[in-house]
Amino acid sequence: MATVWVLGGPNLSRLGTREPEIYGSDTLADIEAWLRGEFPELELTFLQTNDEAELIGWLHEATDAGADVVLNPAAFTHYSYALRDACAIVTGAGLRLIEVHLSNPQAREEFRHTSVVAGVATGSIQGFGRDSYRLALSHLSQTN
Amino acid sequence: MATVWVLGGPNLSRLGTREPEIYGSDTLADIEAWLRGEFPELELTFLQTNDEAELIGWLHEATDAGADVVLNPAAFTHYSYALRDACAIVTGAGLRLIEVHLSNPQAREEFRHTSVVAGVATGSIQGFGRDSYRLALSHLSQTN
Amino acid sequence: MATVWVLGGPNLSRLGTREPEIYGSDTLADIEAWLRGEFPELELTFLQTNDEAELIGWLHEATDAGADVVLNPAAFTHYSYALRDACAIVTGAGLRLIEVHLSNPQAREEFRHTSVVAGVATGSIQGFGRDSYRLALSHLSQTN
Amino acid sequence: MATVWVLGGPNLSRLGTREPEIYGSDTLADIEAWLRGEFPELELTFLQTNDEAELIGWLHEATDAGADVVLNPAAFTHYSYALRDACAIVTGAGLRLIEVHLSNPQAREEFRHTSVVAGVATGSIQGFGRDSYRLALSHLSQTN
Amino acid sequence: MATVWVLGGPNLSRLGTREPEIYGSDTLADIEAWLRGEFPELELTFLQTNDEAELIGWLHEATDAGADVVLNPAAFTHYSYALRDACAIVTGAGLRLIEVHLSNPQAREEFRHTSVVAGVATGSIQGFGRDSYRLALSHLSQTN
Amino acid sequence: MATVWVLGGPNLSRLGTREPEIYGSDTLADIEAWLRGEFPELELTFLQTNDEAELIGWLHEATDAGADVVLNPAAFTHYSYALRDACAIVTGAGLRLIEVHLSNPQAREEFRHTSVVAGVATGSIQGFGRDSYRLALSHLSQTN
Amino acid sequence: MATVWVLGGPNLSRLGTREPEIYGSDTLADIEAWLRGEFPELELTFLQTNDEAELIGWLHEATDAGADVVLNPAAFTHYSYALRDACAIVTGAGLRLIEVHLSNPQAREEFRHTSVVAGVATGSIQGFGRDSYRLALSHLSQTN
Amino acid sequence: MATVWVLGGPNLSRLGTREPEIYGSDTLADIEAWLRGEFPELELTFLQTNDEAELIGWLHEATDAGADVVLNPAAFTHYSYALRDACAIVTGAGLRLIEVHLSNPQAREEFRHTSVVAGVATGSIQGFGRDSYRLALSHLSQTN
Amino acid sequence: MATVWVLGGPNLSRLGTREPEIYGSDTLADIEAWLRGEFPELELTFLQTNDEAELIGWLHEATDAGADVVLNPAAFTHYSYALRDACAIVTGAGLRLIEVHLSNPQAREEFRHTSVVAGVATGSIQGFGRDSYRLALSHLSQTN
Amino acid sequence: MATVWVLGGPNLSRLGTREPEIYGSDTLADIEAWLRGEFPELELTFLQTNDEAELIGWLHEATDAGADVVLNPAAFTHYSYALRDACAIVTGAGLRLIEVHLSNPQAREEFRHTSVVAGVATGSIQGFGRDSYRLALSHLSQTN
Amino acid sequence: MATVWVLGGPNLSRLGTREPEIYGSDTLADIEAWLRGEFPELELTFLQTNDEAELIGWLHEATDAGADVVLNPAAFTHYSYALRDACAIVTGAGLRLIEVHLSNPQAREEFRHTSVVAGVATGSIQGFGRDSYRLALSHLSQTN
Amino acid sequence: MATVWVLGGPNLSRLGTREPEIYGSDTLADIEAWLRGEFPELELTFLQTNDEAELIGWLHEATDAGADVVLNPAAFTHYSYALRDACAIVTGAGLRLIEVHLSNPQAREEFRHTSVVAGVATGSIQGFGRDSYRLALSHLSQTN
Repeated sequence: MATVWVLGGPNLSRLGTREPEIYGSDTLADIEAWLRGEFPELELTFLQTNDEAELIGWLHEATDAGADVVLNPAAFTHYSYALRDACAIVTGAGLRLIEVHLSNPQAREEFRHTSVVAGVATGSIQGFGRDSYRLALSHLSQTN
Repeated sequence: MATVWVLGGPNLSRLGTREPEIYGSDTLADIEAWLRGEFPELELTFLQTNDEAELIGWLHEATDAGADVVLNPAAFTHYSYALRDACAIVTGAGLRLIEVHLSNPQAREEFRHTSVVAGVATGSIQGFGRDSYRLALSHLSQTN
Repeated sequence: MATVWVLGGPNLSRLGTREPEIYGSDTLADIEAWLRGEFPELELTFLQTNDEAELIGWLHEATDAGADVVLNPAAFTHYSYALRDACAIVTGAGLRLIEVHLSNPQAREEFRHTSVVAGVATGSIQGFGRDSYRLALSHLSQTN
Repeated sequence: MATVWVLGGPNLSRLGTREPEIYGSDTLADIEAWLRGEFPELELTFLQTNDEAELIGWLHEATDAGADVVLNPAAFTHYSYALRDACAIVTGAGLRLIEVHLSNPQAREEFRHTSVVAGVATGSIQGFGRDSYRLALSHLSQTN
Repeated sequence: MATVWVLGGPNLSRLGTREPEIYGSDTLADIEAWLRGEFPELELTFLQTNDEAELIGWLHEATDAGADVVLNPAAFTHYSYALRDACAIVTGAGLRLIEVHLSNPQAREEFRHTSVVAGVATGSIQGFGRDSYRLALSHLSQTN
Repeated sequence: MATVWVLGGPNLSRLGTREPEIYGSDTLADIEAWLRGEFPELELTFLQTNDEAELIGWLHEATDAGADVVLNPAAFTHYSYALRDACAIVTGAGLRLIEVHLSNPQAREEFRHTSVVAGVATGSIQGFGRDSYRLALSHLSQTN
Repeated sequence: MATVWVLGGPNLSRLGTREPEIYGSDTLADIEAWLRGEFPELELTFLQTNDEAELIGWLHEATDAGADVVLNPAAFTHYSYALRDACAIVTGAGLRLIEVHLSNPQAREEFRHTSVVAGVATGSIQGFGRDSYRLALSHLSQTN
Repeated sequence: MATVWVLGGPNLSRLGTREPEIYGSDTLADIEAWLRGEFPELELTFLQTNDEAELIGWLHEATDAGADVVLNPAAFTHYSYALRDACAIVTGAGLRLIEVHLSNPQAREEFRHTSVVAGVATGSIQGFGRDSYRLALSHLSQTN
Repeated sequence: MATVWVLGGPNLSRLGTREPEIYGSDTLADIEAWLRGEFPELELTFLQTNDEAELIGWLHEATDAGADVVLNPAAFTHYSYALRDACAIVTGAGLRLIEVHLSNPQAREEFRHTSVVAGVATGSIQGFGRDSYRLALSHLSQTN
Repeated sequence: MATVWVLGGPNLSRLGTREPEIYGSDTLADIEAWLRGEFPELELTFLQTNDEAELIGWLHEATDAGADVVLNPAAFTHYSYALRDACAIVTGAGLRLIEVHLSNPQAREEFRHTSVVAGVATGSIQGFGRDSYRLALSHLSQTN
Repeated sequence: MATVWVLGGPNLSRLGTREPEIYGSDTLADIEAWLRGEFPELELTFLQTNDEAELIGWLHEATDAGADVVLNPAAFTHYSYALRDACAIVTGAGLRLIEVHLSNPQAREEFRHTSVVAGVATGSIQGFGRDSYRLALSHLSQTN
Repeated sequence: MATVWVLGGPNLSRLGTREPEIYGSDTLADIEAWLRGEFPELELTFLQTNDEAELIGWLHEATDAGADVVLNPAAFTHYSYALRDACAIVTGAGLRLIEVHLSNPQAREEFRHTSVVAGVATGSIQGFGRDSYRLALSHLSQTN
């Protein structure tokens, strides 16, 4: 059974209450439940943290576990080169790492137009709300 | 039956022969055939051109036809503000336009890191080879 | 009878339906009819295209015809150096070329603040809706 | 009877003697006389100053008087954010403010390519010599 | 017999009349005739267009025909990444593509100092008037 | 009794009518009256001008009078190095100069993000409406 | 009784010993004691951390508790977009968040001139040593 | 007898007290007296103002009087394009205008490294304290 | 006995497996063992963390312990101003802090060319693999 | 008999051994011999130096000798404004100076994309290995 | 008797023939003779070189000889940080170094607007032709 | 016996007298003597020059001699691409080249933050005074 870690960065714990016109009204738990229903064939691990170090640690663990990764780096996207290096460790090990965003960063503030993570990711999906996650998992599931 | 126009920009006609290590060995026709099989529930129109004006015209027609759009702008991505304005006409009419790329532009030359189209698209998907198209159609099909 | 070619660039064919709060509700045909009524003393040719090459060709023809030009380059304004060179051919031949815009580009997105055409135009008029055209023709008519 | 204030910025008092190959040989008084003849239907006030504060004051007064404004900000165009704020007061009050230039700043030195005023103006007209003024008044007169 | 396609971009059809102090008084036809006389050992195809898409198409065809290319991209030089990708298809196929310019872009406006095409060309020759073409063909002929 | 000069720059005379959603509905006179009531222990001088030179002169006079200064430089904030030099004269004499803004410039247009004055001020307070002034005076009063 | 959380970022625990000529000789505990004495009418919570994630978590908790916030982001000011997003959650919930700095960042190194937090704060106060905190609380207390 | 106007910009009235380690301890009056003694053969007019408009006016008057100019633009150096245009009027009339600075701006803050005036001056002299003035007058006197 | 803390930043725990062609095949434990053997005269503390806050805390503790520091900030090098401030606390206390890198950042991606830490370090050593550490300790040992 | 000086800059003496995959395996002497054979009708002088001053001196001498110049400035291309001035002396005297490069600088590191010499050269040829020299001489020979 | 070394950089040996409309028709020898006549009270040494190293050496020697320096760095002005360091050695030893230019670099190409030497010079004089030298010596003579 | 060339760039001959607070009081000869004592096992050649060409020549010779290099490029660090190319010849031949600096350039002026040499060096060591040299030799000696 293919293993995928679905990881989320800072402030995503506020999903459902924070700016719902941008991020939608689902909570992270809602999204997790929905995705588990959509992908029974995948062994999914869901984790969220505001902590850069914890996120880096999970990427190391996912690498050791041989898991593909779906990562929503949230605001870390724009400056965390430490996260970038950790992502490169995942893809450097031959695993896949997909960057996802609920909203479309290119349609928002200037600083959100830059991703320091994208260059070492397998691919990226942005702007589809919770469906960004489903698409990422669909790719991992179908091309496994 | 939902209608989707799948449009491609310059040099995509060379797919399958041009830098297969980046773009894969499928031709556009291969991808079209495969997608038609994957999405029998969608009324799909496939068009490719090297001509900015023709592409703009198709976006106008898709708007008039009430079709959603999956657009691979290829190199127009990086400078064609005329194409951007045409994309904004699509989404301004309440239709969806998804920007797709076969490769991951963020992992290539500096000039490919900028998309003048992304800011007016519904969302974007990049880096999954032909699967970028399938994910875009999957989104349009499931959230129609 | 003085001759003027009134040329329009990409997406202007959508006038009247595209973002009417920015561009007004007149179609290009409405504007043409109105201008013909306002300037019976001018021999006017109205042309619009989404095609950079066609627009360049018309500028060459206008030059050969000894016509002044009123040009709304639309989004080509911001990147088409090929159009710029064609404009310079018009003014280099001693004819007049006036850049017009319906909206005020300086009050919109950053990328609209740059015109690669303006430096080789006789002058420019922007922000007056359809009246931008009338003012341009008024100048050409009165100072012919 | 519609009221328009025609305001001019620094060094315009030298018109007619300063670089006539760029600015023409008319003095400001010549232009005023000519415009009064052209627009008998408008109540015109002509003022020129080298003083940023005086120009700001006039914009305040024009606002209180309910007058539209034709403004040639001259070199203030390129740096006076105080003038910009005063222009925004005019247009914020529902009046019209048109930026005019005798020459075409885009065809001159790099620093003249930036206007800090244009973004809050109704529109702008540049490059037509004294006719820039006539076009601005024509717009105000015909669309009043 | 070695085959070379000599391709020209926008506004080159005006050669001989446009700014002869920069571009010389020869027309494209004059240059073609002269080059055919100079290189009887080469099978030469001469094409010019203002159309980016047509130029891209010719580069695809040249690739399929196994022809080397001499390309004067004219103003496309400065922004057409679509053309760049098409040039990369030529050189990626092991053929040679030489960028030529009649004038010396480095001695002209700032925007002409950047070539988005040069990085994927075999080499470039600029500033020798019609002789730029002869030198390009001389290289192709002698090192074939 | 401690002396403080409260100085204001261009367009502040419009307070109460100009963009009240940004600047509040109090006039400068309202603010002055309120502050005099709040700080009976301070000898307050209130002055406003649109004139850079007058403002500079007042800073010289305040220096000679040994007064601390609360300065709202308004739009001069963003370009008046002459004002900066005058502010440096105040603080260079061992007096205190506090930069205040009614609105939060960092939440507005890009050009408002730069203050050429802040580097030579004692400190700055921005975004609290009329309370920005009270806080500045509170600091001067309590730490006199 | 109004509730305010006073939060501090990295290295502020060193206050009193680190560069006292810039930051003063008070420790954070000294400042807390002094502020509690100054504002008996406020329910104050004082917290400091070097940990970006912990600081983000406190901002979430303050939001849930309906508390206003006084935040000294210290060096996070210049790069932590994750913190920015968390601040936006506070002000997006209708609470107030005031950015304070002991020193005047504009008078120090270039990198300190940029605040990624200021744009989503209610206002900011900088350069008054410990009094920066008192002013922030004074605003919250008096305008509650 | 040759006529020279020696003009000074903002804050120069503070000379002798403002930062004497940079600007020296002489007042403007001291410098004037000394220069009159040094150049009995010149008809000298000394004027100083903090007012950009007044300075511009003097440059117009000097032009009409056929006087050469020694100008210390002080902080206007770095942003006043209005002053630049006025200087260009002087030199455009065949008169000489020399930019002088007491201190060496290149050895001070970054913003002092740019002079918007220098490009239209005859020459510039900086860094010699009061002697900068003497050298400028020496040039005008000896090469008259 | 001289005390030195050898601290490492994010992802260094992966040493030995991550990109061995860049970072070598030694693990951190291998390097520690080797260095302890090389410098018996030094009291060495080895610590590694992915956590910016923990690293900052250790720098505070090292300062209190009077220890010199050898710091490999890894990716924090490029953005963590919080770490920079903590380093400045070390060197501000008269202790030495040496920045080390295993690889040569100047020979890698553009973003690795900037170190926000270097300006407050005593010195830096980069590009020598594990020997970068030995050199740092050699300096501290011999010049103690 | 026409005279041409063929001059080379720093490190070209290493030709044939330095990065032969970029620069080819011919030594400078090989190239000289080959060119002498190709152009018996030209009086050729070949000189190479690592010394900027020597190269400048040769350009002065070539000017005095009325010789055209073929210059490979090597790395001086990117920063030696002194060399640029010397090149301008050659072309300012009505002689021709052609910039040549063995490799294509536009396909290499970013810093090689800028030539400070090109703007004052007659033309430039790059990317053809030793044939770059032959083409330059061919131009000089045929258009002498 | 005061000693002054008058040093000149690359291409100044061409003075009198090179672009006389910019640099005048005097040779360096003419200027030397004239200056010796003007300043009999100074012990003058005149040297010119195209060689950066030789110029640096002379600055070292002048320092050892206790001589003030008048330096025309010519094109080295814009890039030679080695020369800058040598100039700093002169002024660091308490001697004076004056940067002179015959022409006004600010009125010429963009690259001439930057001087890497000016920041460590005592002062600079530019734009007065040969009189730039006389003014520099006049300052050294009168303030010795 | 391993061979190392220790090369120094411009102005290093002034060591011991130039800014001793930055560079220390040792002369180059002192450092040489000390290093010879420290590394009897190395065959050391010490050379210093202000001449870029001489330095380049030595790098060529060192390459031919199979020597490793310790290079203090001094101010050439910041602009000499010719030196960079020569360094690349050394490392391209499989020899080691270590860039050393006595002071820490990152703690000094902005222009010293860029090294055009570092990218082609084996590694770099900066900020340790004369000990920078010892560390470089220690690396070469121990890892030979």
